[in-house]
Amino acid sequence: MPAAPSDPAAARTRSWWGWGYTEEHPDDAECVAMAALLPGTLARPLPIPQFGDLHIGSPGVTPPNSLAHRVTADPEARAAHAMGKAYRDVMRSLRGRPGRIPDLVAHPASDQDVADLLDWAGEHDVAVIPYGGGSSVVGGVEYRGATHRAVLSLDLTAMDRVLEIDKAGRSARIQAGALGPVLEQQLRPHGLTLRHFPQSFEFSTLGGWLATRAGGHYATGPTRIDDFVQSLSVVAPAAAGATWRLPASGAGPSPDRLFLGSEGALGIITAAWMRLQERPQYKASTSMTFADFHRALEAVRALAQSDLAPANCRLLDPGEALLSGASRDGSTVLVLGFESATGSVDDRLANAVDMARAHGGRGGAPTADRDAPANAAVGAWRSTFLRMPYLRDGLARMGAVVETFETAATWDRIPALIDAVRTEVGAAAAKATGHPATVNCRLTHVYPDGAAPYFTVAVAGRPGAEVEIWDDIKATAGDVLHRFQATVTHHHAVGRDHRSGYDRQRPEPFAVALRAAKDALDPRRILNPGVLID
Amino acid sequence: MPAAPSDPAAARTRSWWGWGYTEEHPDDAECVAMAALLPGTLARPLPIPQFGDLHIGSPGVTPPNSLAHRVTADPEARAAHAMGKAYRDVMRSLRGRPGRIPDLVAHPASDQDVADLLDWAGEHDVAVIPYGGGSSVVGGVEYRGATHRAVLSLDLTAMDRVLEIDKAGRSARIQAGALGPVLEQQLRPHGLTLRHFPQSFEFSTLGGWLATRAGGHYATGPTRIDDFVQSLSVVAPAAAGATWRLPASGAGPSPDRLFLGSEGALGIITAAWMRLQERPQYKASTSMTFADFHRALEAVRALAQSDLAPANCRLLDPGEALLSGASRDGSTVLVLGFESATGSVDDRLANAVDMARAHGGRGGAPTADRDAPANAAVGAWRSTFLRMPYLRDGLARMGAVVETFETAATWDRIPALIDAVRTEVGAAAAKATGHPATVNCRLTHVYPDGAAPYFTVAVAGRPGAEVEIWDDIKATAGDVLHRFQATVTHHHAVGRDHRSGYDRQRPEPFAVALRAAKDALDPRRILNPGVLID
Repeated sequence: MPAAPSDPAAARTRSWWGWGYTEEHPDDAECVAMAALLPGTLARPLPIPQFGDLHIGSPGVTPPNSLAHRVTADPEARAAHAMGKAYRDVMRSLRGRPGRIPDLVAHPASDQDVADLLDWAGEHDVAVIPYGGGSSVVGGVEYRGATHRAVLSLDLTAMDRVLEIDKAGRSARIQAGALGPVLEQQLRPHGLTLRHFPQSFEFSTLGGWLATRAGGHYATGPTRIDDFVQSLSVVAPAAAGATWRLPASGAGPSPDRLFLGSEGALGIITAAWMRLQERPQYKASTSMTFADFHRALEAVRALAQSDLAPANCRLLDPGEALLSGASRDGSTVLVLGFESATGSVDDRLANAVDMARAHGGRGGAPTADRDAPANAAVGAWRSTFLRMPYLRDGLARMGAVVETFETAATWDRIPALIDAVRTEVGAAAAKATGHPATVNCRLTHVYPDGAAPYFTVAVAGRPGAEVEIWDDIKATAGDVLHRFQATVTHHHAVGRDHRSGYDRQRPEPFAVALRAAKDALDPRRILNPGVLID
Repeated sequence: MPAAPSDPAAARTRSWWGWGYTEEHPDDAECVAMAALLPGTLARPLPIPQFGDLHIGSPGVTPPNSLAHRVTADPEARAAHAMGKAYRDVMRSLRGRPGRIPDLVAHPASDQDVADLLDWAGEHDVAVIPYGGGSSVVGGVEYRGATHRAVLSLDLTAMDRVLEIDKAGRSARIQAGALGPVLEQQLRPHGLTLRHFPQSFEFSTLGGWLATRAGGHYATGPTRIDDFVQSLSVVAPAAAGATWRLPASGAGPSPDRLFLGSEGALGIITAAWMRLQERPQYKASTSMTFADFHRALEAVRALAQSDLAPANCRLLDPGEALLSGASRDGSTVLVLGFESATGSVDDRLANAVDMARAHGGRGGAPTADRDAPANAAVGAWRSTFLRMPYLRDGLARMGAVVETFETAATWDRIPALIDAVRTEVGAAAAKATGHPATVNCRLTHVYPDGAAPYFTVAVAGRPGAEVEIWDDIKATAGDVLHRFQATVTHHHAVGRDHRSGYDRQRPEPFAVALRAAKDALDPRRILNPGVLID
């Protein structure tokens, strides 16, 4: 898991078109070297898109004077807020076809600012797209409608303060616009941490995690951001308010759970009281290899159904293990980690290794120091994990189609589901491109009753048709997931890219309730139009 | 925790007016003996109410022939479905003033039966009150309206089968009408258990637990019934359907969480896939005493914030400890228990005892056998826990006002909240009756960020005014909880008794959404009118 960088405000430049910091982008030589693994890619990288080449018109609407200090029409700011950071977003920028550029970008500083902006937007038929770190990979921050007069990107990152800390109760009230490193830096002096480290940690906000039900640090046990919410503050066009701070309550359906995962369609989450943890003092980790992927699945199921509660229990299939450098001999690799603030976890690691060995696992010697792992597989996997989105963009520049998707299903379906995705998505990718395709899989989260497989697809594209090729491949993936009743998303959210699959998956009683809630909370239909519901 | 009885179908008679089985009711002599502890109670018990003394009119509506085989107008069945089992329900029966007796009782056998009954009820303006085990203590199963043409009690207990078991994924599809022992008996041959053992276990159903977000077996960690739901089947007047079986999903707001806690107001839960567990093989328990209640709170907080995860971590204040026989010297008592299906829990118990000793705890020798405890305090507390509702009814027959209520709050508020409830509710009870009042407290569930205190009030009433006295006392309790922003209910639900507190607690964005969902799912407003929303 990524540690927070020591200085989150370090002077690096956020890329307007690609993942993360421009300083971290692979250079041309690295792009070419990577692409050597994918037959059929370009000989040299596509040029880095230049902001000046975009055709950015004048805003179609002007904010009132009372809000002007919170709103900008700066073209570069608008361009940077046009899309998320999915492969299809990056490739559209590389090919000079970005999505709809918002007319304005707002930076509210308070709940009242948010309410005022929503009032104004409602009166002027302006679509409002909530925006945190902008790392959506499902079209969650991109306007694709045609019926609104204008589009406002509502960037919450000016609201990034830890407002209150309750040290005895290990909780803090945090504004929704705080990026991962920004909030962790404020918690650190108190010896506390949220310990929520998604791959997008540096480039996503608390509000984004809450609105999309982000996947958490732990591979087992309470791990989703949902489980750490004590109270939410929400501003919707029709109502605003906060839930009480409660460790638990049986008073009606959970009010917070309706807004968790609402993706900006029901209201703007402006702050939350979050449950925190002490920083773990005791750590132990290792990696193990398996000759057989299906036997490794059995090992992971046994671990998930035990009460050992590993913090990390990531299973890499042979392709994923090879790609990350965790194994070069075709083995399946299991990365195991335990953490505690209370006491030694060495026994739990030893018990877990014994359990995995009973299912054919080999190796399992404890890593000497989790933060500076002597164990090559653990270290290789961790650094690749953080670098992966940058590498994806480098491969995109080489004309490759490279993207990920994730799901979750119960154990009875997991082996056949993974096999079917690999076979059918691989075939679809090869057919669409005429090139050999790679489909790798890892398990990111495991549960007593199932697991969350995460797939990576890589194949050389056809120049200019990369986005359409990816959409075709993804449609095949969606069909396989639907056939197995595996969720359309485990933690990437629905956004706009998953709408058709979500509509098929969502049961009718909830669809009826959600539409009614949307109508009541957002009667003018300005909030993030196109996500979840129309 | 109660073990499932060996034969749930054993021939005992359910009481129509009081808790549980008539064979378990205290006899007159036991009632008199108990009441000796409460100055001002009656000299001899009120007579057991006779069903034949009730004035039960003819039903105001007749079901169509197509549904007749699922519906009864039997007067005793109707009387038994008129109310739940709160003190105020029992006392109203004792005083010959029961709530509105439903016109009909239905026993659907399928989702289609439920849908047909809802259709018919909607066409004829018949209020439908979902009914499981009938153990509501918050007016959850009692019609208090005046605007419907008739009232139908929808008793789900004919739908009590475990329909499917997924042994590898440790889950089962269970019909909502299964009482606790009925579902555990069906799971036992498979070595699996739901391990959800509320005090009402024998007299409450899976559907009731889900609709009211029941509190679970564990004192720490995932314990609410919510956490064990994999999928729900719901039939509402406007829509019906089931969620997919998923270990986790990030596809929009959780559809299940909107119906969990909906108390029959949004739809009828007819079945659920539930996450199960292996039966625990390793157990260890003990009890400890504390001279100071506030220091004991600190010990419990430390335990809840550790990763020791005790299955039982119940703190009994001196009055509660005395009442249950766990301590007679004015000590606070902590009952600790650990359970695992995977391995020994002796180390965890030892660590927990060390932690409690650091906060002033004494004792803590392990109990030899958890199921036949040598430790007197553990055993005394467990048997009293199960017998308590019966004793309450015995005291009610002696004219006492005896009832419980529960809440939850973050740790920063817990000590002052408990002190305030004891002082102010005790004063209100004494003022309302002119008799000395007892207010005891125990913690039933503890969380890293807070705890759930459970209060028992006992005071002699004024003959004939007992219900009004309780309502006055409860109003004072509600005011104290509201002042501390402590939830109006941790696991007893809102029902009708907690409506005013719930309305004050519920944030406006969720109120707007809930009203809209209700309108859309139940457009004729027949579902459990009066709970949660009007």
